[in-house]
Amino acid sequence: MPGEFNRLRVVLVATRNPLNLGAAARAMSNFGFTHLRVVNPYELAFREARSAVGASALLANAEEYKSVAEAVADCTLVVGTTAVGHRELQHPLRRLEYGARLIRKQLASGRVAMLFGSEKVGLSNEDLSHCHWLMRIPTREEHSSMNLGQAVAVCLYELVRDVKAARSAEKSQRATAGEAERITAVLLEALHASGYVKPSTAATTAEKVRRLVRRLSLQAADAEVLLGMLRQIAWKLGSRKG
Amino acid sequence: MPGEFNRLRVVLVATRNPLNLGAAARAMSNFGFTHLRVVNPYELAFREARSAVGASALLANAEEYKSVAEAVADCTLVVGTTAVGHRELQHPLRRLEYGARLIRKQLASGRVAMLFGSEKVGLSNEDLSHCHWLMRIPTREEHSSMNLGQAVAVCLYELVRDVKAARSAEKSQRATAGEAERITAVLLEALHASGYVKPSTAATTAEKVRRLVRRLSLQAADAEVLLGMLRQIAWKLGSRKG
Repeated sequence: MPGEFNRLRVVLVATRNPLNLGAAARAMSNFGFTHLRVVNPYELAFREARSAVGASALLANAEEYKSVAEAVADCTLVVGTTAVGHRELQHPLRRLEYGARLIRKQLASGRVAMLFGSEKVGLSNEDLSHCHWLMRIPTREEHSSMNLGQAVAVCLYELVRDVKAARSAEKSQRATAGEAERITAVLLEALHASGYVKPSTAATTAEKVRRLVRRLSLQAADAEVLLGMLRQIAWKLGSRKG
Repeated sequence: MPGEFNRLRVVLVATRNPLNLGAAARAMSNFGFTHLRVVNPYELAFREARSAVGASALLANAEEYKSVAEAVADCTLVVGTTAVGHRELQHPLRRLEYGARLIRKQLASGRVAMLFGSEKVGLSNEDLSHCHWLMRIPTREEHSSMNLGQAVAVCLYELVRDVKAARSAEKSQRATAGEAERITAVLLEALHASGYVKPSTAATTAEKVRRLVRRLSLQAADAEVLLGMLRQIAWKLGSRKG
């Protein structure tokens, strides 16, 4: 949904620390979001963040607003993030996993504002009253408040997260049974040559080695390398002719 | 799986910036992980991070190692994180969504080390050779390298993420059809009293209002408040007796 990501507005309200402004912008760029809005940032922090070495075009293009109302005016959905302290919440509160799903849906047709409050106090009740609902990152109750830059990164990650990728099967190719058996054979040769295999238990040992090789869950490429190593060892042990 | 989270070891290799050490520790605490290991951190950075105001017990208890080999020796699975630059990777590479699933599985029975490299160069090839496989956060190709503290936060979030929470239905109670109809009735009263409703189109207007109220998808608590407001307005307009 790359085009749809263009409709997200990350709105930072009353941010104090220039490093957090920079970190938020970096996470946005990492995950493919482009529109940053700031509401009443600490002037000095904002200037410092913009002029920092390596400051992004994204940060340079950030739009500045005097109020939350103006910053979200063109959005069809406004979501506030919160660590849920002891404040009594008047809004529906959704966990990030579910909230992000709703946001993605809305992004298909309209602009969505995602609000992040200041480092010290988060979003004020007045800020929150502009929100349709609130979203919380599933942090521990005993330490729920996240660093601002990290909170932005986690929320954006959940938006780009690919459900299918969590289920995706392995792409790397596993070794075939035939390759495993060739490795088993050469390893047994080497073990015989080294005196590891006792004649009385040779059959049992062979089975033991066969099972062990199967449990290695070898990749095809690794099987080839391993076979080469074992052949060299077996040759050196004199069990096979070079 | 709170108990199982105790088995994760976050391993920071050659970290340079004390702020990143602090940020990694904070994210760990936010998401309920406790064991931090550092390999060859810049001494000054490590001391500074530990003595910083608000530095956590978690950081104070961080274990220091001279090599990756020692830092992961007691782990049954070692996973390296990477932004995948132009480096040729010799390892299976998994997206975070899938990799985290494998890590959770492994945590049920053994310790897992999750490695993060230095801010400038990430993990070296030597570091990577200690890993069973690599994991990458799904960032944009054009800007794949994340801030260290943010990368740690996103990886840990994916570990605690609750699949079921993404599907969870709304818990807040919706207004009933009866409540919606009461609102419709009082709103119509007010509209009649205000002169909004024209006698010739009264029936159509009533239907229009009914449909509009249904589309508001009102919560039960809000329906009550709204009804109170409308009753007051209708009373003031003289359409009903106080």
